Amino acid sequence: MADTAVRTENPAADRRTPAGGAPTAPHSADEAHEACIDQAAVTRALLGTWADTRLQARELIKDELFWQQPGQSMADHRARVLSQMKVLVENDGSRRAFPAEYGGHEDNGANIAGFEEIVLADPSLQIKSGVQWGLFGSAIYQLGTKKHWDRWLEDVISLELPGAFAMTETGHGSDVAAIGTTATYDPETEEFVIHTPFRGAWKDYLGNAALHGKAATVFAQLITGGVNYGVHCFFVPLRDETGAFLPGIGGEDDGVKGGLNGIDNGRLHFDHVRVPRENLLNRYGDVAADGSYSSEISSPGRRFFTMLGALVQGRVSLDGAATTASALALHIAITYANQRRQFDSGAGTDEVMLLDYGKHQRRLLPRLAQTYAQFFAHDELLQKFDGVFSGRTDTPDEREDLETLAAALKPLSTWHALDTIQESREACGGAGFLAENRLVDLYSDLDVYVTFEGDNNVLLQLVGKRLLSDFAKQFKGADAAKLARYALGQTAGKVFHGAGLRQFGQAVTDFGSTARSVELGLRADQQHELLAARVEQMVEDVAGALRPASKLPADQAAELFNLHQSQLIDAARAHGELLQWEAFTDAVNKTADEGTREVLTWLRDLFGLSLIEKHLAWYLINGRLSNQRGAAVGRYIDRLCGRLRPHAQDLVDAFGFAPEHVRAPIASGAERARQEEAAAYYAALAASGAAPVSEKALPKKK
Amino acid sequence: MADTAVRTENPAADRRTPAGGAPTAPHSADEAHEACIDQAAVTRALLGTWADTRLQARELIKDELFWQQPGQSMADHRARVLSQMKVLVENDGSRRAFPAEYGGHEDNGANIAGFEEIVLADPSLQIKSGVQWGLFGSAIYQLGTKKHWDRWLEDVISLELPGAFAMTETGHGSDVAAIGTTATYDPETEEFVIHTPFRGAWKDYLGNAALHGKAATVFAQLITGGVNYGVHCFFVPLRDETGAFLPGIGGEDDGVKGGLNGIDNGRLHFDHVRVPRENLLNRYGDVAADGSYSSEISSPGRRFFTMLGALVQGRVSLDGAATTASALALHIAITYANQRRQFDSGAGTDEVMLLDYGKHQRRLLPRLAQTYAQFFAHDELLQKFDGVFSGRTDTPDEREDLETLAAALKPLSTWHALDTIQESREACGGAGFLAENRLVDLYSDLDVYVTFEGDNNVLLQLVGKRLLSDFAKQFKGADAAKLARYALGQTAGKVFHGAGLRQFGQAVTDFGSTARSVELGLRADQQHELLAARVEQMVEDVAGALRPASKLPADQAAELFNLHQSQLIDAARAHGELLQWEAFTDAVNKTADEGTREVLTWLRDLFGLSLIEKHLAWYLINGRLSNQRGAAVGRYIDRLCGRLRPHAQDLVDAFGFAPEHVRAPIASGAERARQEEAAAYYAALAASGAAPVSEKALPKKK
Repeated sequence: MADTAVRTENPAADRRTPAGGAPTAPHSADEAHEACIDQAAVTRALLGTWADTRLQARELIKDELFWQQPGQSMADHRARVLSQMKVLVENDGSRRAFPAEYGGHEDNGANIAGFEEIVLADPSLQIKSGVQWGLFGSAIYQLGTKKHWDRWLEDVISLELPGAFAMTETGHGSDVAAIGTTATYDPETEEFVIHTPFRGAWKDYLGNAALHGKAATVFAQLITGGVNYGVHCFFVPLRDETGAFLPGIGGEDDGVKGGLNGIDNGRLHFDHVRVPRENLLNRYGDVAADGSYSSEISSPGRRFFTMLGALVQGRVSLDGAATTASALALHIAITYANQRRQFDSGAGTDEVMLLDYGKHQRRLLPRLAQTYAQFFAHDELLQKFDGVFSGRTDTPDEREDLETLAAALKPLSTWHALDTIQESREACGGAGFLAENRLVDLYSDLDVYVTFEGDNNVLLQLVGKRLLSDFAKQFKGADAAKLARYALGQTAGKVFHGAGLRQFGQAVTDFGSTARSVELGLRADQQHELLAARVEQMVEDVAGALRPASKLPADQAAELFNLHQSQLIDAARAHGELLQWEAFTDAVNKTADEGTREVLTWLRDLFGLSLIEKHLAWYLINGRLSNQRGAAVGRYIDRLCGRLRPHAQDLVDAFGFAPEHVRAPIASGAERARQEEAAAYYAALAASGAAPVSEKALPKKK
Repeated sequence: MADTAVRTENPAADRRTPAGGAPTAPHSADEAHEACIDQAAVTRALLGTWADTRLQARELIKDELFWQQPGQSMADHRARVLSQMKVLVENDGSRRAFPAEYGGHEDNGANIAGFEEIVLADPSLQIKSGVQWGLFGSAIYQLGTKKHWDRWLEDVISLELPGAFAMTETGHGSDVAAIGTTATYDPETEEFVIHTPFRGAWKDYLGNAALHGKAATVFAQLITGGVNYGVHCFFVPLRDETGAFLPGIGGEDDGVKGGLNGIDNGRLHFDHVRVPRENLLNRYGDVAADGSYSSEISSPGRRFFTMLGALVQGRVSLDGAATTASALALHIAITYANQRRQFDSGAGTDEVMLLDYGKHQRRLLPRLAQTYAQFFAHDELLQKFDGVFSGRTDTPDEREDLETLAAALKPLSTWHALDTIQESREACGGAGFLAENRLVDLYSDLDVYVTFEGDNNVLLQLVGKRLLSDFAKQFKGADAAKLARYALGQTAGKVFHGAGLRQFGQAVTDFGSTARSVELGLRADQQHELLAARVEQMVEDVAGALRPASKLPADQAAELFNLHQSQLIDAARAHGELLQWEAFTDAVNKTADEGTREVLTWLRDLFGLSLIEKHLAWYLINGRLSNQRGAAVGRYIDRLCGRLRPHAQDLVDAFGFAPEHVRAPIASGAERARQEEAAAYYAALAASGAAPVSEKALPKKK
């Protein structure tokens, strides 16, 4: 429906000449020549490495039993999503990640890919599935050992055993190391005593905790023999057959949330709840019957991060789901903008198609470009994830890279989703505010993606610290000669990039200053140079600013770090943007069809230039772009928007969504039908001779 | 509750030294000396000209019967809001705008002020009240004449006659002139025939249309004697006593929306519905019994805009309500950030208070500064509105100014509300996502403010066109000498501002280049110069670019305009920002208390500098700031955030919200109580000698 109703009989004509002769953004015949994308090939590229699984998942959720129903009560929505989970189980939707021994498929990449697509049906279902199989189930599988798998994994997969993932507390979210819940070993009974010592240590915001969870994987400070060995995870039964809490366990419903109300989030607390010693998920640390602690990882810090890292898949899957949600929003808004007309152009022609307005293109097309970049970057992330979790490339370095990559990409894509959905909603006006058109619920549901599974700002700080430590490694054990060379290089760079010259009030002439055309100096290589050099210089600048910290007392060092916190986060974000740009460029280079490659190159350029425009002040201040070149960035973006405008529908159609995935009446062709009906009415009226004349056409009265 | 529980016994100590010795952003003793705001005086200043009415409204909505209930079903919410409207009627809440003859108070400014406060109770109630008394009632009062007032106003005020405001159609929103509904005069029966000729002409998104409206003020093309006299407004009964549609009238429920679900929005269509000739609201245009048309405004365009202008109060009130909603969000987020601790600083002290993080200050304090600016700018707008609508200053020029001011401020404040509420939500993490903490519903409800009562981008275009026409007026009838002087002045300006020198790759040295301190060159006068000069140059630039349009064929002229649409919108936004900055500065200058004035000056500087930072690339490219000065802007903002941090709680407490207005558990002091309980637990544990030692403190095993 969405794919066909919006096209005219002659797609090529439709593409080049927006109907009605309304003004279009400028694109010369030369710029907009016959280039045209091979839509099926682009769809295949966007679906990525696990395309088959994605298509299988998309086919499954064409069934309306999976579709979110706007305005459902919280109770009904929760019940509906639970029932949808059972259908997922019956359709192979819950076993991809798990070992064959328990009915699983041992296909980690496919598992994530399949779950991500469920965001198109109902984000509540995606996240509740993530709680059950991606968090609760993964904790048992990744942090536990065979005895735990034998006992619980089959029931986890079949949903016989719904569970909560009890990590976050009311008092501690992103700072997991500081949680208050204790698990104290009692050698007398060979049990752990799980206890909540104060209100701030209640487990909070846990899916499956308010209603459906029969057990939980509970994170607590492991204490044995008077020593706190840090955070470990324990399997704790929660409810009996009737659904009542077991003795010592209490809780509350978190109630209505901003979105995701199909999930029963709640709070839990424990009053000296005893579980057998074997309930410690003991892959990375164990307690013997006598209470002695052992772990193959001797560093408490590294052990903690290894345990958390085993659960990275949550972040990985949010990156993909947020990208798919952004694509859906843009599919809706661009399809509507390609049918809806508003305001006479003043040229005596038809009203203007929304997407022919320069401003409307500026609002939607750069976001489309970033969404493309994210699809390609996400597939690389997912390949890395699959490599590590399949064991093929499971080295400490690869694990660290995976965690850094996930921490860099998830913030960018989840913020992008909110930004894109909101802009799409506004671009659809009042129609965009109706729940039937999907955008408002999509926003509400995706909102929490930016703060859960690691608050975005906290994740970017982690990335920033990794960048700093990579930077420092260059000099570890370096001899005096190397350090001197670096110092020299740095000075040279500063002069070249204008930091020195700045003092004389001059900007350095950048490499593009002799170019005749706006885009010269801003082509692919230069985009890469600009984006990459920015990351490098930002990291150098922060590292330089923090250098005195090692010689300061701890409080002053902390204060110094705090002063540069924003800067570090900005550097991390720049790093993520560079990764996205590189992934997009790799995808362009792999494109065989010439027309497709040309259009995707424009789109990649639009992404790169939009990043440069966003940070333009930085490029100017740091002498990376002259004022003249800087002023050209905006004009080049305008031109790229004009060039891409005729391809916009193809590019959103290439997401490959079926009508059952879109489900927004405004993106169904209904708007075009209304426009045609109105035009036919006025045409018939004019032909009848009965049309009223306009007052403005009357002779002026005295 | 919120005002007291968050403060310690010694407010001054609390202000200067964040507890726990955690790192704070830098502010020297000199910078953060004893300056301290007179909170009551600031509250009074923020409440503005109609403070008494605002306080009266705030007192009324302390009653919980007015409070939004998260998660209510749409049906229950609609019924609840209708019943709240009746309580408003009983409490003088519906009559402030209307003539004394019908029980009104004839106090236009107070009327808007009172309604705006209702956003604190439930935005649905604010907007449904706006539909009934601000749109439906206003249409009768502002567009009708005494015969209409006599018949309907008392029933409108008492809610005996609930009505819809039927302007927008599915096919036409912001472009009202192009609506399709017709009202054709039939001299035989002396009736107008109201008719919906096609689906796109259905009236849509109308509050009160789905359920409660007994009548509607319907906008339609007035046709008489074969001539279309343009859009006029008609009173059309909708439903009989049983609530069933009258013959010829049909409609649909718009269903669930992104927010404001306490309002029964719906669609209406008319099949040759006949209303008496007298039902034309005939203040600006009338049809005699014989069908002849007359109007005191001969220009059809001016007549149309005069009618629309009579309904400007919707935009005015959205500006105020959006500002109050932003203030509420910031009150919640800043209070929480001033109690919540997260992450050890690494300095071995307590965990760090959120508001002591540099990044957290950067996220919240500039938005606080803009919110202050908006309160002051809004009061000026409201004074102008009151002057015009009371008749005191009702001149065409004042009306035009009022409409331009409303069109400039409403977009900025409504977008600011969404931005601020979202940032506040994220700054509160998972707790911010719970409906009980208000932020998510506030966002959902305010969302549509950015596209209704005039889409924000469309309004800014109107402002831009006004700026262009003011610019052109300077030269109307100018002699050759004046034009020559202007041309010379413009060239000189270009050189001075670097546009000419840009070609040589140089930036002009700005006036601050000799300054020793970061803030020199960025003080109040210079902020004003920078902001005002930007508006001027942007308008000049667009005007220059559009100059050839007058000589081009219409389609090419339209294309040229489209090319510069974004630029024009940017200029209008800059104009609105300047107005806000000026209003804030006027308010600072009127502040008597020295400490208050000092703190408010910092806050105003933060607002001004944040605007300059937002547009920094423009200032650099146009040579208005040297690279050196540009680099100082961010550092100055950091310093201002550090200075303001100790005053942040005072500044949000000065909004004057009572616990009954805030109603967010996280801003109630509960978080502080939890922090204290946890700290006391750990202290007691340590004192008992039974605390486990950290594994990290054990001697390293081989």
